[in-house]
Amino acid sequence: MKVIYPGSFDPVTYGHLDIIKRCSEKFDDVIIGVLNNVSKKGLFTVEERMNLLKETTSQFKNVEISSFSGLLADFAKDKKCSTMIRGLRAVSDYEYEMQMALVNKKLDPEIETLFMVSRSEYVYLSSSIVKEIALHNGNISSFVPEIVEKEMKNKIRGDF
Amino acid sequence: MKVIYPGSFDPVTYGHLDIIKRCSEKFDDVIIGVLNNVSKKGLFTVEERMNLLKETTSQFKNVEISSFSGLLADFAKDKKCSTMIRGLRAVSDYEYEMQMALVNKKLDPEIETLFMVSRSEYVYLSSSIVKEIALHNGNISSFVPEIVEKEMKNKIRGDF
Amino acid sequence: MKVIYPGSFDPVTYGHLDIIKRCSEKFDDVIIGVLNNVSKKGLFTVEERMNLLKETTSQFKNVEISSFSGLLADFAKDKKCSTMIRGLRAVSDYEYEMQMALVNKKLDPEIETLFMVSRSEYVYLSSSIVKEIALHNGNISSFVPEIVEKEMKNKIRGDF
Amino acid sequence: MKVIYPGSFDPVTYGHLDIIKRCSEKFDDVIIGVLNNVSKKGLFTVEERMNLLKETTSQFKNVEISSFSGLLADFAKDKKCSTMIRGLRAVSDYEYEMQMALVNKKLDPEIETLFMVSRSEYVYLSSSIVKEIALHNGNISSFVPEIVEKEMKNKIRGDF
Amino acid sequence: MKVIYPGSFDPVTYGHLDIIKRCSEKFDDVIIGVLNNVSKKGLFTVEERMNLLKETTSQFKNVEISSFSGLLADFAKDKKCSTMIRGLRAVSDYEYEMQMALVNKKLDPEIETLFMVSRSEYVYLSSSIVKEIALHNGNISSFVPEIVEKEMKNKIRGDF
Amino acid sequence: MKVIYPGSFDPVTYGHLDIIKRCSEKFDDVIIGVLNNVSKKGLFTVEERMNLLKETTSQFKNVEISSFSGLLADFAKDKKCSTMIRGLRAVSDYEYEMQMALVNKKLDPEIETLFMVSRSEYVYLSSSIVKEIALHNGNISSFVPEIVEKEMKNKIRGDF
Repeated sequence: MKVIYPGSFDPVTYGHLDIIKRCSEKFDDVIIGVLNNVSKKGLFTVEERMNLLKETTSQFKNVEISSFSGLLADFAKDKKCSTMIRGLRAVSDYEYEMQMALVNKKLDPEIETLFMVSRSEYVYLSSSIVKEIALHNGNISSFVPEIVEKEMKNKIRGDF
Repeated sequence: MKVIYPGSFDPVTYGHLDIIKRCSEKFDDVIIGVLNNVSKKGLFTVEERMNLLKETTSQFKNVEISSFSGLLADFAKDKKCSTMIRGLRAVSDYEYEMQMALVNKKLDPEIETLFMVSRSEYVYLSSSIVKEIALHNGNISSFVPEIVEKEMKNKIRGDF
Repeated sequence: MKVIYPGSFDPVTYGHLDIIKRCSEKFDDVIIGVLNNVSKKGLFTVEERMNLLKETTSQFKNVEISSFSGLLADFAKDKKCSTMIRGLRAVSDYEYEMQMALVNKKLDPEIETLFMVSRSEYVYLSSSIVKEIALHNGNISSFVPEIVEKEMKNKIRGDF
Repeated sequence: MKVIYPGSFDPVTYGHLDIIKRCSEKFDDVIIGVLNNVSKKGLFTVEERMNLLKETTSQFKNVEISSFSGLLADFAKDKKCSTMIRGLRAVSDYEYEMQMALVNKKLDPEIETLFMVSRSEYVYLSSSIVKEIALHNGNISSFVPEIVEKEMKNKIRGDF
Repeated sequence: MKVIYPGSFDPVTYGHLDIIKRCSEKFDDVIIGVLNNVSKKGLFTVEERMNLLKETTSQFKNVEISSFSGLLADFAKDKKCSTMIRGLRAVSDYEYEMQMALVNKKLDPEIETLFMVSRSEYVYLSSSIVKEIALHNGNISSFVPEIVEKEMKNKIRGDF
Repeated sequence: MKVIYPGSFDPVTYGHLDIIKRCSEKFDDVIIGVLNNVSKKGLFTVEERMNLLKETTSQFKNVEISSFSGLLADFAKDKKCSTMIRGLRAVSDYEYEMQMALVNKKLDPEIETLFMVSRSEYVYLSSSIVKEIALHNGNISSFVPEIVEKEMKNKIRGDF
């Protein structure tokens, strides 16, 4: 069974990596789909995000990293894969995710979204909170791998 | 009994039309109040939104379409109508709506907000998700009437 | 326009009375429907609850007090009234109420449930919490009218 | 890939059947695990619930029906299957389900719970609400298959 | 500053002990108030719960263990302490806790309830889930201290 | 015991003042920490917000007003104070606040966040809603003190 794990991954956190590891153990193939959202500039470019994912997921042999712009339903068709994986944290997450799952099923009835609950130690963790802490020189080593931490510091020093 | 159904309607969806139909059946007169939010540019102008509403609600004889800027409480006074109707979908909706209902009652104790639950097939539907799908050439025919679909395509082709 | 305000009212609180007052001002006729739930013994009998409602709502000339057992949809048919009013407090309320509104519409498509937001000072108030406080001799005078307070004390002294 | 779909199924509804159909299409094998909860008497016995499931899922060739008492984690070990499927409806559901998923992972780190969002037309549907409606002679034909409806009527007529 | 940490503690879990430790560090004196709920039989008697608390909190020198029946507001008055501490886990918790905090403030305006967020690893943990797992011979060693685990096993073997 | 009450206070409302009053009564010293968020322009400058706080909290002798930019954890260290106070209103509030409390504890394990429930009459009140009403010349006298109302009117007249 093949699944797509879509997201922004700007940048990848330990929360994402936990979901990726669990997917890699349960499913035959895992496609990480990095969303190229043209209307929202990220901290990292899509290429940089994909590189960080490659470096931090190299131990998982059945994980492939790809990017897409536009609708997830179209990406799913391209990849001939109709099962999506999403991690769930808080209640507000859940409502948005439920909406997206229902809309994607409406756009293509074959699409099935499966949700995994984040490990409780990552329940508070999001890319945006990591960026905010990094921006103010806070210690992010318990939120992201070393390579991501290093690249964030370079990026932030360069950007501001 | 006369009611106001206020909103952005940018553009009107089948979710809105379901609420309008149910209001039209229950109440003597229904005023659709299109909010002219000066600080947020919509996809459609207020005039265009009103036109789409006119075309899609012409079968309801007791529905009037109007626009307002500023406070809903002032619009209500202008229209000599103190009963507001709002559709409810998810929990996040509810909290915002509860806040607005309490604030409007504080601004004018006569104002009463009545909530209707969206039909379950429209629970995931919002104007912004329809716009996002249309922007990426997704099929929106199950979310909005044909005329709205056509105008969205024209608008998006012209805008981008 | 005629509405039904259904509930257990075991006993009526200031939260209920606020909704009844607002209904009485907005609608032509208000039927308070006291649910006779055979599978759950209340503190007061249905007759006692109706009497307390009569005493505390006598100032509203367009309010009628009735009782029902079984489905609300059947009571609505009996009363030739298809508009239900429910008060909303917290989020957990909302989910249950949404479920009931959707089920009632499924049982009879004519039925429309309109929700009113409780005044913020009554957002924490429920009949069960009042009973619990009264049971432990707490002061309930800010939660229920004097007559209800008196009857609760009699009831609790007699019951335990 | 093999999955367990555990629950009470007292009785099976169209909401359950939608999840079972979707599981049957996505996964190689689906084990429906009927919980035999010794501390809570159901309307139907576990055997009756299993029979109703057999009758209503006979078209799915990869679905097996089983029962368990005790911990889901132990049932999973017996069945040599570590992937659980649960349907999600409202927010209150989600919190309880998240708790159970985290606890099950704590009891056995191999266990993975995957959530599917209920189709929006079944978002309000639960076995207990169907039982309540049936108890008051309401029409349940849009909530459960004909055979379940018939057995519920027999059961309720006999029980009360 | 003196605080009361009220609850059922049937039995104390690592989640409770985390809150107690944090209170003990922040406040001068901590009174653990074990609720003697006459209308709900627990697994342990109030005396047994107090003993388990004594054994598991003996390292905290500023912690006192007490019990109460009736209203928390009355217990607070007895103890001449108007600050309550409550741990918060999920959203459903929060709504109930908010209600109780508002009611307690209504009963006695001096009472202030302060909430602490549970450590994320205990977000799923409750006494009732521990009891359910123990009842089915599941491993509860990561949820409660050894002494509690031992007493639960004795109790359950004796009770059933 | 010393606490920090951090926030934007753009501008201070009666909701904030209620929390400040309650903190001032419970704790020895209260530091109001006005966040200088460089990436988000407020209606008032940080100096103006601090002045409005000074004028409206002058009756509380143990309240100090300060400002910070960057991480709250760093501000806490500077002020040698590890107890934070936050007011809670709705559920959406709670999830964000829980996230921040857990992140702050991760950044500095000494930090403890204590939550107070807003008085129910302020449950709907936020600085942003007050600004929106003021912008449309609505009456804000029940939401903010007179001096704040006056300064908002000056500011808005000047700004637009």
